[in-house]
Amino acid sequence: MGKLVISRPLPLKQINIVDDFWSGYIQLVRNIVVPYQWEALNDRVEGAEPSHAIRNFRIAGGLEQGEFYGMVFQDSDVAKWLEAVSYLLETGKDPDLERVADEVIETIARAQQADGYLNTYFTLKEPKMKWTNLAECHELYCAGHMIEAAVAYYYATGKRRILDVACRLADCIDNVFGPGEGKIQGYDGHQEIELALVKLYHVTGDQKYLLLSQFFLDERGKDPNFYEMEYRRRNQTKHFPMLDMVFDRSYSQAHLPVREQQSAEGHAVRIVYMCSGMADVAAETGDLELLKACRDLWNNIVSKRMYITGAIGSMAHGESFSLDYDLPNDTAYAETCASIGLIFFAHRMLQIEAKGEYADVMEQALYNTVISSISRDGKHFFYVNPLEVWPEASDRNKGFSHVKPERQGWFGCACCPPNIARFLASLGRYIYTVKERTIYTHLYVGSEMIFDIDDQKVRLTQQSQFPWKGNVRFEVSTEQEMEFTLAMRIPGWSTGAVIRVNGALWQWEDSVVDGFAYIQRKWQLGDTIELDLPMLVSCMKGHPLVRETIGKVALQRGPIVYCLEEADNGANLHQIKLKQQSEQNVSFDEDLLGGVLTITASAQRVQSDDWGEQLYKANEEITTESVTVTFIPYFAWANRGRGEMTVWVRTE
Amino acid sequence: MGKLVISRPLPLKQINIVDDFWSGYIQLVRNIVVPYQWEALNDRVEGAEPSHAIRNFRIAGGLEQGEFYGMVFQDSDVAKWLEAVSYLLETGKDPDLERVADEVIETIARAQQADGYLNTYFTLKEPKMKWTNLAECHELYCAGHMIEAAVAYYYATGKRRILDVACRLADCIDNVFGPGEGKIQGYDGHQEIELALVKLYHVTGDQKYLLLSQFFLDERGKDPNFYEMEYRRRNQTKHFPMLDMVFDRSYSQAHLPVREQQSAEGHAVRIVYMCSGMADVAAETGDLELLKACRDLWNNIVSKRMYITGAIGSMAHGESFSLDYDLPNDTAYAETCASIGLIFFAHRMLQIEAKGEYADVMEQALYNTVISSISRDGKHFFYVNPLEVWPEASDRNKGFSHVKPERQGWFGCACCPPNIARFLASLGRYIYTVKERTIYTHLYVGSEMIFDIDDQKVRLTQQSQFPWKGNVRFEVSTEQEMEFTLAMRIPGWSTGAVIRVNGALWQWEDSVVDGFAYIQRKWQLGDTIELDLPMLVSCMKGHPLVRETIGKVALQRGPIVYCLEEADNGANLHQIKLKQQSEQNVSFDEDLLGGVLTITASAQRVQSDDWGEQLYKANEEITTESVTVTFIPYFAWANRGRGEMTVWVRTE
Repeated sequence: MGKLVISRPLPLKQINIVDDFWSGYIQLVRNIVVPYQWEALNDRVEGAEPSHAIRNFRIAGGLEQGEFYGMVFQDSDVAKWLEAVSYLLETGKDPDLERVADEVIETIARAQQADGYLNTYFTLKEPKMKWTNLAECHELYCAGHMIEAAVAYYYATGKRRILDVACRLADCIDNVFGPGEGKIQGYDGHQEIELALVKLYHVTGDQKYLLLSQFFLDERGKDPNFYEMEYRRRNQTKHFPMLDMVFDRSYSQAHLPVREQQSAEGHAVRIVYMCSGMADVAAETGDLELLKACRDLWNNIVSKRMYITGAIGSMAHGESFSLDYDLPNDTAYAETCASIGLIFFAHRMLQIEAKGEYADVMEQALYNTVISSISRDGKHFFYVNPLEVWPEASDRNKGFSHVKPERQGWFGCACCPPNIARFLASLGRYIYTVKERTIYTHLYVGSEMIFDIDDQKVRLTQQSQFPWKGNVRFEVSTEQEMEFTLAMRIPGWSTGAVIRVNGALWQWEDSVVDGFAYIQRKWQLGDTIELDLPMLVSCMKGHPLVRETIGKVALQRGPIVYCLEEADNGANLHQIKLKQQSEQNVSFDEDLLGGVLTITASAQRVQSDDWGEQLYKANEEITTESVTVTFIPYFAWANRGRGEMTVWVRTE
Repeated sequence: MGKLVISRPLPLKQINIVDDFWSGYIQLVRNIVVPYQWEALNDRVEGAEPSHAIRNFRIAGGLEQGEFYGMVFQDSDVAKWLEAVSYLLETGKDPDLERVADEVIETIARAQQADGYLNTYFTLKEPKMKWTNLAECHELYCAGHMIEAAVAYYYATGKRRILDVACRLADCIDNVFGPGEGKIQGYDGHQEIELALVKLYHVTGDQKYLLLSQFFLDERGKDPNFYEMEYRRRNQTKHFPMLDMVFDRSYSQAHLPVREQQSAEGHAVRIVYMCSGMADVAAETGDLELLKACRDLWNNIVSKRMYITGAIGSMAHGESFSLDYDLPNDTAYAETCASIGLIFFAHRMLQIEAKGEYADVMEQALYNTVISSISRDGKHFFYVNPLEVWPEASDRNKGFSHVKPERQGWFGCACCPPNIARFLASLGRYIYTVKERTIYTHLYVGSEMIFDIDDQKVRLTQQSQFPWKGNVRFEVSTEQEMEFTLAMRIPGWSTGAVIRVNGALWQWEDSVVDGFAYIQRKWQLGDTIELDLPMLVSCMKGHPLVRETIGKVALQRGPIVYCLEEADNGANLHQIKLKQQSEQNVSFDEDLLGGVLTITASAQRVQSDDWGEQLYKANEEITTESVTVTFIPYFAWANRGRGEMTVWVRTE
């Protein structure tokens, strides 16, 4: 076994996003989200749930007096915020922000203990219980996020302070865990350390981090079960007594060795973080068995357990997957972090094998669930991303209480908001990857990108009208003629794609492999590629084994999944039934929700006014009227107050 | 205010059920259910959850050593069993059974304390905490069931032993609770004592029991809230910390004075027991405000919050109502006890005002939910009665874990099985009521009944072919000609009813009031009434505001709601779509499920075989095939192994 030849994303600083759709999001993260989250982490947002995360570090570092407050994984919110800041600094100077970050880093560094240990919960609250409750207490998870932040900050600024902290922390972990005598043969309840250690390996070149990552992956699921053993060792105490993290093995994907897992079980975020680590290790080691497990889990997720919005996790209990084809729209969990994790997983698979389906899912999760999870003002967030909402039921039926009809200011368990921030701030990394002389385009996001071939700099400018129009234009800028391949993704949703190279039609069908059209030639200054990906409204149907989509359709246009919202269509959206041969009209509404393309369609609508009081009637003809209904992009819902929403609509 | 003139049920001993359909159930209760439950109460059923209920009484009575085990309301299981036994003894001599009952009664009597207090949980486990946690601990609920049992046993046998126990217990309660200084101004978390005290008032004639019932009703919902006050008094301890019985006022219908409640909120069993008590007190006192509240709550339940099977309670959390028109089929709670309680409520309203709709609902709950809850072998029970089941989801999606695809042997919380037993054993009481010279027939159940008019005995023999055929024949037997009125219920589901008196067509439409056809005449020996209620298959539709029934139909024939089961139709019942103009064929299958009438209908069925692996497809034509599907009565489902079931089926 040896390293696989994979395509790599470019350093973020080599990509500058200039895009009508996405620049706004990046600015929002820079100007609003990150500053707002800084306020939230410092408990200065009125009405939002307190975080206390910064104070925990200050207290642990001896900078102030007090007690730990928050979830056992509260530290990770600071780490994710710092990671977001790093990406912002990598893509744009901001001395004020950098000063704040340096201060936070100093605070973090002070909270680190002499042996490298770093976790404010255990330092402050249960110092004697370190490493005794991996199943529930997220110590390695928090460490992983700190490592990710450190690596990102180092890449962004070149400063080693936090990277050194991270290395000492990772060395501390390496001293405690591993196959050797006297070490713990265990693994974290919440995967994250695995992928983080591979990042640390990349930046330091120190193989021990890669080996430790591999160790954690391969320990998982061994018999006898580690969580039960540590549970007995610590006298059977539980941190989350309401949950069953110790004995419900599949909750943490500890029911089988990772190489034997074929279906996505348990906590959705955990499994996609785990899969990302597995793909990372497979890429570095050429471990094809591990890669096969990645493929199996991927296939299970995308062909049996994923919502059309790229969301995953059907069950609120345990924030978990449930079973094949179980995709309830109204009680969906569909956690924001899980879709971000799915993108991480997709992005890594895409680097290992250039298959368009990975990028398709990445795009699907990005344009729908990920950006749905943040409000237009950048200060409100969805943790759960349902595909159908009845606000009164959310208020009063406890089975729906996890489904919020409005985005929240902050959360007691605040994993999602900083995850959105760090992900959007690093969006540039997801557009391209490069493998030898091939540049893959995965996302059509307007940008300027610079890459090296034969020590020559090549600039690739992308102009995109996504997601409203499928016209994309690339321009190559190179000092001298250069032979390389541009691989253009042909999205799974597109039909009739046209590619022109320097204005001339290019028969991409001849060179397409697994969803990528490979354009190999000698490129010179000013060469252009134009993609025309017709965006037609598609009536999407779900697999006939999905109970919740049968007899229904969802409208999709390009990567955008649409929904009906009460604001446009009144309440009782279930009364709407789309006509089979409905003519759909699309129109761009500049003033609506920051400018969105809406779809109107004709439908029949059940009338309830003349039904009367009786709850059930025999042989009653239902009165309907013809109506025109308006669909908006799913990501834009819940920006006009409380109301119903549905993605799937009944059809004839 | 004064007593309302109401129609009263006849003593059970005056009614002998002789019915092709129901005699089997009564025999099942007598020969199997009651003996089986006796074994269960004595922990002699292998594989079933232990009860310990009899042992708790023996230990509290000093007959054996040990500790209390079970739920805080474990005593009530014994009381309900004893009540069932009483009804069996009232309708048929059984010296062996009576001896067992007498022994149980002695055991119970020994467990009673000197001051009349009787509750094994508090006696054995928390003797200092009596009457300190009404919100959660069911002391008055258990007392109520003991009183009901005592009254029933006294009526059945004439023996006062247990009635005396009940009176001492009620006197004890009367000493502790009431408006006076030094008494507790409180009320039980689980209503039951209210209706029980009215029964005790009926049998003893002692008005203080009626006043105490009224007191409990009127204390409920007063501000400041009693549950919160007692919680503070007992230093804020909770018995069920996972639930919120103290502060969630509507859970126990303590959010408003009962007279102001207009919608059914909270725990479903509690509210229908409460309403039964309210109706009882209104009947005895002529309190029209209380009666209006009963009507309001009734209307809310039956026109907005009841399943077509007569089941109530949409939400597993708190076994509760949720909101208007929220009637999920697959996550329904629909507790057996709640439908029995709804029948209690309906039966009382029917006595106050002879409106067919009360009897319709009684019949609906009886023929569907109540008898569905018990297996054909009499030893397995549903606690939850869903209208749609996907067994794999019950196994693996925790949101469905309360929905069992198979009846269980016993329950840790075993309220339902003895409730079914006591209800079915007393079924005779629900057939007729009598008001002055009018005999109301509410249920068409074959039976012989004797009643007195002018000190003359009249016998009314009913022969019924329900629920498979709507032919019912009554024969009057009287020594001398006698004038009285027979009021025959014309069911809400029937159209084209025909009545013949002594063979001659009788224009009932002229005399029908609120669903009852009043036949007043001078009756003599051998007079007959024949009812022909055509039973046609109806396609039932739900109110257009019900999300879970839109675009679907349920088949009903006579009082019987039908369902599709996997045993007849294969898995994936959601793929079935009934044809609008489907011809339905009915046929009686003697060998199926003890003999049931099945319905076949033509449908289109989605094919999933040639769809392939993709989870979502654009603009795909769904392949369907024409099939014939078979419906069975809902009550008979889950008697042929695990499988899917659905009541509501998609339609064109």
